[in-house]
Amino acid sequence: MAGRGRFITLEGGEGTGKTTQVQRLAARLRAGGRHVVTTREPGGSDGGRQIRDLVVSGAADRWDAVGEALLMYAARRDHVMRLIEPGLAGGAWIVCDRFSDSTMAYQGYAGGLGRDWISELDRLTLNGFGPDLTLVLDLDPGAGLRRAAGRDRPDRFERKGTTFHQTLRNAFLDIARREPARVRVIDADRDPDEVEAAIFDAVARALPDMKDAG
Amino acid sequence: MAGRGRFITLEGGEGTGKTTQVQRLAARLRAGGRHVVTTREPGGSDGGRQIRDLVVSGAADRWDAVGEALLMYAARRDHVMRLIEPGLAGGAWIVCDRFSDSTMAYQGYAGGLGRDWISELDRLTLNGFGPDLTLVLDLDPGAGLRRAAGRDRPDRFERKGTTFHQTLRNAFLDIARREPARVRVIDADRDPDEVEAAIFDAVARALPDMKDAG
Repeated sequence: MAGRGRFITLEGGEGTGKTTQVQRLAARLRAGGRHVVTTREPGGSDGGRQIRDLVVSGAADRWDAVGEALLMYAARRDHVMRLIEPGLAGGAWIVCDRFSDSTMAYQGYAGGLGRDWISELDRLTLNGFGPDLTLVLDLDPGAGLRRAAGRDRPDRFERKGTTFHQTLRNAFLDIARREPARVRVIDADRDPDEVEAAIFDAVARALPDMKDAG
Repeated sequence: MAGRGRFITLEGGEGTGKTTQVQRLAARLRAGGRHVVTTREPGGSDGGRQIRDLVVSGAADRWDAVGEALLMYAARRDHVMRLIEPGLAGGAWIVCDRFSDSTMAYQGYAGGLGRDWISELDRLTLNGFGPDLTLVLDLDPGAGLRRAAGRDRPDRFERKGTTFHQTLRNAFLDIARREPARVRVIDADRDPDEVEAAIFDAVARALPDMKDAG
């Protein structure tokens, strides 16, 4: 019987390469013998996906920041209860594309609700549950948005202006500065192979028990 | 220019006659010269209705109490921002079928989250906003459920057992006992005309300024 797994999240603005790097990190952890589950927010569970559809579609002012944050946390609650927590209990390593830090950055910093408001909602919803390690993929917003624009149609958040996205970048950097034990900043303005290596190195340093099965 | 309106909510279990009495109270207030808007929760605004559809459909365990409460408050935020607060600011009297006390009763008391948890979520979401007057329609749950069953197909909440509904009744009575200045209990085990008269009397006593335009 395996012990409890580990919960790793990747965070950052649009086009920073999170989706690619989640898969690369998962592959390297699997190569080391770990059982790995990759997932994403919003929408990593059935209920979460249904809530996500409400949040990301429609007009930019469809929900205010309070409404967005409540919906995101309702989706997150479902995701944690249905997938993340059972997976960890079963020994899986969970690698998740976005988690609570995204709500903190988008609605707390950029949306103006503030750190205390989001922290309190986080506490009510998750009762202290959070990632063992978070990797912030850091990139100049102009470069990130050009990458995202080449990929598919922009959603409600991607359509917001560059000032918004600069605020987001600064938010993730501030979160990392406040919680250095949990959050590491990864320079994402590099070749994806180099980013992958930097992420794996950060994981190996932060969670040395990953080597148990290596 | 009219002054600010008043916000009146009707609460109580299934089949206590809230929907009928909301309309009757509105008619009497209109007869007194008030501009009245009737609405309901969950689902009194477009966004609120979309969230409501997620909450009330599906399996009984589709969401846990935390998820339900977050979704209900996301719907409530939309309802307050889009309809209730603008209506009050424009001088309307808003009569609403269910509001925050229902989340307190269903998820706080019956769902086990507790009063403090719901109060904190309420504060985060509404920042102190609430009804000027709340009328709890009180009825033995057996009688209420027989009424509701005759009306249409039961939803997720109506399918729960009678112990649940007895807990709900006690919850609304406890809420009323704790906030006597805002909440009045109305005996709903009477002819609808008598219930209507009792409600109107309670409104006249609690909000004497309703007579300004009478």
